[in-house]
Amino acid sequence: MSDFKNELEQEVVFINDIILRYLPEETGLDKKIRESMNYSVNAGGKRVRPMLMLEVYKLCGGNDCQVVYPFMAALECIHSYSLVHDDLPAMDNDDYRRGRLTTHKVFGEDFGILAGDGLLNLAYEIMAEALVSGEGDIETKAKAMEVIARKAGIKGMVGGQAVDVELTGRTLSEEQLDFIFRLKTGALIEAAFLAGAYLAGCDDETADKLCRAASLIGFAFQIRDDILDVTSSLEELGKPVFSDEKNNKTTYVTLYGMEKAEADVESMSDEALDIIKSVGKNEFLEELVLNLIHRNK
Amino acid sequence: MSDFKNELEQEVVFINDIILRYLPEETGLDKKIRESMNYSVNAGGKRVRPMLMLEVYKLCGGNDCQVVYPFMAALECIHSYSLVHDDLPAMDNDDYRRGRLTTHKVFGEDFGILAGDGLLNLAYEIMAEALVSGEGDIETKAKAMEVIARKAGIKGMVGGQAVDVELTGRTLSEEQLDFIFRLKTGALIEAAFLAGAYLAGCDDETADKLCRAASLIGFAFQIRDDILDVTSSLEELGKPVFSDEKNNKTTYVTLYGMEKAEADVESMSDEALDIIKSVGKNEFLEELVLNLIHRNK
Repeated sequence: MSDFKNELEQEVVFINDIILRYLPEETGLDKKIRESMNYSVNAGGKRVRPMLMLEVYKLCGGNDCQVVYPFMAALECIHSYSLVHDDLPAMDNDDYRRGRLTTHKVFGEDFGILAGDGLLNLAYEIMAEALVSGEGDIETKAKAMEVIARKAGIKGMVGGQAVDVELTGRTLSEEQLDFIFRLKTGALIEAAFLAGAYLAGCDDETADKLCRAASLIGFAFQIRDDILDVTSSLEELGKPVFSDEKNNKTTYVTLYGMEKAEADVESMSDEALDIIKSVGKNEFLEELVLNLIHRNK
Repeated sequence: MSDFKNELEQEVVFINDIILRYLPEETGLDKKIRESMNYSVNAGGKRVRPMLMLEVYKLCGGNDCQVVYPFMAALECIHSYSLVHDDLPAMDNDDYRRGRLTTHKVFGEDFGILAGDGLLNLAYEIMAEALVSGEGDIETKAKAMEVIARKAGIKGMVGGQAVDVELTGRTLSEEQLDFIFRLKTGALIEAAFLAGAYLAGCDDETADKLCRAASLIGFAFQIRDDILDVTSSLEELGKPVFSDEKNNKTTYVTLYGMEKAEADVESMSDEALDIIKSVGKNEFLEELVLNLIHRNK
């Protein structure tokens, strides 16, 4: 195993441990909602968003990582809730995620809805608690929370998700695909970068540059997803392939062709890395970004 | 019309106007999610929670009401989202609320889920924005946000809702009914009182007393609901009556009998009002509380 893969595995374990501290105990009359929330978060995610936040914090010279932990946990709760609700019968109607039954399949559809609600709210409980009692400057923490909230809402993830759902099965225009790509996945990556930067005390100009890098990474990540849908085998990906084609879905590949898709991933990746390098030195973050964009599953 | 009824109507109009300022514009590619969120909030609610927050703020000597507005709007967004999700087919499966089609009946089940998510998140966007840019002391505002977040989550409304859903159709113990009453409705009333008190600069002892009053009011409100289910006519209530009995639902009345139910409402109401009067003078708040508890629909 390469040094990076090894380091990545350790970092996932480290971040899982952080997130765990913020999850509810599975006790009391309301044990089931707590179990369903924890089940959703502990579904073996790659912890990409909290990891990016932590590494951007380090990139920007932050040296008291404890300040970032609640925001990392919160962002992962938001990501998890979005998956739980996305899997519901009225949405994507998925029975499995990462080879494991989805939350509503295990706990019932009502608890799929409630677990998502509980997780979304928990994200803000964690951040609010960090504001009133945690370490660090409250103005800075409020700024981090504000950007996470904004990027998670209709001007961000929920907005992208809504347009994606509304237009499912229809042919998308370039503008529509761009909107969905930027908001549905891109917004939370931007939130990770901006929160990490703010918490490290970055000036706004640097934070804006990093937001641009995040936006490119999120976009390239999505294009890559569309490329993989065409090129991957079921075995590699763990889910049915050619699903986009089967569903008559407009993707970056159907819209622009494979050649441009590959080329755009490369140029976005290059620009994002140039920005990161211009801000500071964090080789793990650089490798992580490359790994995300050039993944083959 | 009595002076109070007149004042109440005006206050609802006033609060509707405040809430409206914080709702999203219905434009852009994601117009539908914005419409569905606004539809849910503008469903003719009585604005009880924001009204209580504002009046408790005044009771505690607060004199810059603008500071409270974002928190009022946020609390109403949280209340609205909970109704939208509660009405979903996998939950209560209600087609109508206040004589109007529920959100998912108008916009589809997927948008019922997304509108709720959007509103819950919007609540925190509004509060986070108020923290980073609004008037007032940031520590105080963070404290108000923290209590709202805590009371809206699994230690509050979501927890109560989850237990209510889980035990639907079963006979409840006294402990279970108590848990549901305290959390499902009580928690947001407590949040209204505590946020209003904190924002006015109350000391913790007074805030705790007011939280006790809120808890009693929320509990009495729920008992009253159970009493009304037995005594009301369809015409008065605008929804089917005896629904509890029909659904074999354990209520305060089935558990303790009508006489104790009526007596407990009275004693809780008295104690809550005594607490309020001990803190300060706000006759409108006193009448509002009486009106909530002694309503006949």
